[in-house]
Amino acid sequence: MRMYDLIMKKRNGGELTEEEIYFMIDGYVNGEIPDYQMSAMMMAVYFVGMNEKETLYLTMAMANSGEMLDLSMIEGVKVDKHSTGGVGDKTSLALTPMVAACGVKIAKMSGRGLGHTGGTIDKLESFEGFSTGITTEEFIKNVNEIGISIMGQTKDLAPADKLLYALRDVTATVDNMSLIASSIMSKKLAAGADAIVLDVKTGSGAFMKSKEDAFSLAAEMVKIGKNAGRTMMAVISDMDQPLGNAVGNALEVKEAIATLRGNGPKDFTDLCMTLGSCMLQAANVAGSHEEALQMLQSVIDNGSALEKLADFIEAQGGNRQMVYEEELLPCAQLIIPVYAPVTGYIRKITCDEVGICSLILGGGRETKESVIDLSVGIVLDKKVCDFVYDGEIIAYIHANDMEKAEICKERLLQAYEIGDEKPEPNDIVYGILK
Amino acid sequence: MRMYDLIMKKRNGGELTEEEIYFMIDGYVNGEIPDYQMSAMMMAVYFVGMNEKETLYLTMAMANSGEMLDLSMIEGVKVDKHSTGGVGDKTSLALTPMVAACGVKIAKMSGRGLGHTGGTIDKLESFEGFSTGITTEEFIKNVNEIGISIMGQTKDLAPADKLLYALRDVTATVDNMSLIASSIMSKKLAAGADAIVLDVKTGSGAFMKSKEDAFSLAAEMVKIGKNAGRTMMAVISDMDQPLGNAVGNALEVKEAIATLRGNGPKDFTDLCMTLGSCMLQAANVAGSHEEALQMLQSVIDNGSALEKLADFIEAQGGNRQMVYEEELLPCAQLIIPVYAPVTGYIRKITCDEVGICSLILGGGRETKESVIDLSVGIVLDKKVCDFVYDGEIIAYIHANDMEKAEICKERLLQAYEIGDEKPEPNDIVYGILK
Repeated sequence: MRMYDLIMKKRNGGELTEEEIYFMIDGYVNGEIPDYQMSAMMMAVYFVGMNEKETLYLTMAMANSGEMLDLSMIEGVKVDKHSTGGVGDKTSLALTPMVAACGVKIAKMSGRGLGHTGGTIDKLESFEGFSTGITTEEFIKNVNEIGISIMGQTKDLAPADKLLYALRDVTATVDNMSLIASSIMSKKLAAGADAIVLDVKTGSGAFMKSKEDAFSLAAEMVKIGKNAGRTMMAVISDMDQPLGNAVGNALEVKEAIATLRGNGPKDFTDLCMTLGSCMLQAANVAGSHEEALQMLQSVIDNGSALEKLADFIEAQGGNRQMVYEEELLPCAQLIIPVYAPVTGYIRKITCDEVGICSLILGGGRETKESVIDLSVGIVLDKKVCDFVYDGEIIAYIHANDMEKAEICKERLLQAYEIGDEKPEPNDIVYGILK
Repeated sequence: MRMYDLIMKKRNGGELTEEEIYFMIDGYVNGEIPDYQMSAMMMAVYFVGMNEKETLYLTMAMANSGEMLDLSMIEGVKVDKHSTGGVGDKTSLALTPMVAACGVKIAKMSGRGLGHTGGTIDKLESFEGFSTGITTEEFIKNVNEIGISIMGQTKDLAPADKLLYALRDVTATVDNMSLIASSIMSKKLAAGADAIVLDVKTGSGAFMKSKEDAFSLAAEMVKIGKNAGRTMMAVISDMDQPLGNAVGNALEVKEAIATLRGNGPKDFTDLCMTLGSCMLQAANVAGSHEEALQMLQSVIDNGSALEKLADFIEAQGGNRQMVYEEELLPCAQLIIPVYAPVTGYIRKITCDEVGICSLILGGGRETKESVIDLSVGIVLDKKVCDFVYDGEIIAYIHANDMEKAEICKERLLQAYEIGDEKPEPNDIVYGILK
């Protein structure tokens, strides 16, 4: 078999076989197939596409390119959750304790972020002493005993995807549904959960700008997961403005805690309830959406969801008291209000601009080596559809540097569009696929 | 400027500017742009295409990537000729002395062949002592004094094309009209001639299998050359069976000499007359096709074309006597007749099979390091449309090894298709573009 012939076949509209796709992925990982052939293949795939079978084989070949996590030592249905990401997306922080408190086993691998804020692991490190650098044995033990554990993604998880993504990233071959879906799903399948719930974002702050594309990607991933024998559900949710109010690491932890207390922002709470319901149903712990919502509401009302968070933090070396005493979490030195420049309805809040504000303050990583300031960020006090008066506070900047805060303030004002006409509100959840 | 953005632009259907194309080619040649980005770009070009402007800029950028030959020291119009190649294509050997004898200055760069037989340079080396390893000064002096010189292609002629072609060759991105045309034309433009006559082959033995594709490629190259300020003519000719009768290096030289004496095969003679007429017209030496044909016929009839070949061979160190005494040229030890297995019309002679026969005998190169046996080859005694009786001689194999000759014989019989129905004869020339 020669890679040249596979490129030619795909270029001419052909379908690659399972054997051919494994040959290609294995050869690429072990260095026998050079980057320049793989990038030509990726561009051919961009134009010709891959069908359902090819996409499954590609996903499986990448999942099998490294360690496949064996979670069989954990009793019951193991559920994983994945979000395609966006600004203010602290969903895992609130959602996983809620669901675990309802009796679902959460075995999740997370990454650090390279972008506007840190990733889930960075955010969790707001808890003093907390670490995701645990062994697979500790991970399995924690899931069995507490019902939840989050570990850092091992280097050997789907290494083919890591290599291929890095290549696609510099050759303009990222945005193809099959390739995006197989990249996400290869890691999820290798991570070993029985059921996977996906949160596919859409809107100006999401990778999928249009709802149509988001539904397509969700459908593609659900198909792959099902073909690989997993229980799948996907929620398509809004990312046309930041999710919730807080953007920044410790600030988002605080908002997650508030949500676990029943005091979270409506959009964020609603999304957690929907995703939680999917996870409960996927794990066969709830028989219907209504039942699931009741279960989730009750673990919030009786405090057991919050306690689950504290147990989880403690089990991975963190200070559980910080869950109950917000002031112990990292706090910025300066809190600077941002005022509405005119009277009117907030018509738009550009996600990326708010994200860049967080980055300017030091809350995100520009390179892999950047050190994150966990305390800084933005809290949006007014969101899309709210009516504001000229001079009213619309947001707060949490900073440790006055100069950066000033730059951030100007930039944040540009993120807001205020006008006379009240815009149509977006739903937070656009649909559920399974 | 970033290569990533250029790939994205082309992928999305955009038009690359002159500046962008120069950035890409210069960056690739000096190693700043990696192979994997260039191969992704080539695949995007395969699918999206390049327009007339882009194709011209690409050609010019590649032509300018190395030395641009300056032929201004040669008086008059300098004419170059290029063939897209095929089996039995010894055109340059007969054509250039004919045209030079009519007063046109031939300044030609040629290559060695990697394929069924050698290239023009290999064939010319059948003349004892002959060398194309001359300096640019000698080259120019010879063209001025004798009217004809052929030199080996310098390493620094369009190096971008060499690099890019090698990459396209292993990434299934060769067969795109703009890329093929720019590859050929970049070398022709760098070689400095004022007028360029192209011989674009079509048929089973040619790179362009269909007449339509051959006309498209010819039109593309004529456009590029004109846009670059050169006088252009292109002949579209048949390569559905080998050209002339001889296939093999010294055998082709002998056929070229016979043609210069007026005793060449009809198809080959006709093609030389047509190409020669184009060259005379392109150089403004003849005012019409009829006038050109008369001039060419007279230099054959009066022996001056043959003498021009002898002068040219002598000027580059070769033994001029070999032009007049055929037996002095390399001769194989064995001449083995091949007999028709049945009675009927020759319906087809598969070019590639005949080419492989030459390769088996040792007449071509499989790798760059192969040493060519100049004496071996095949002489076809019967060609398409000829009627043959069972047991009649259809070809002769010239070999130095009985075992190879036997393998070759079997293979050659497979190249012939003999049947009851007389096929429609192909024209040797399908059209002329200018």
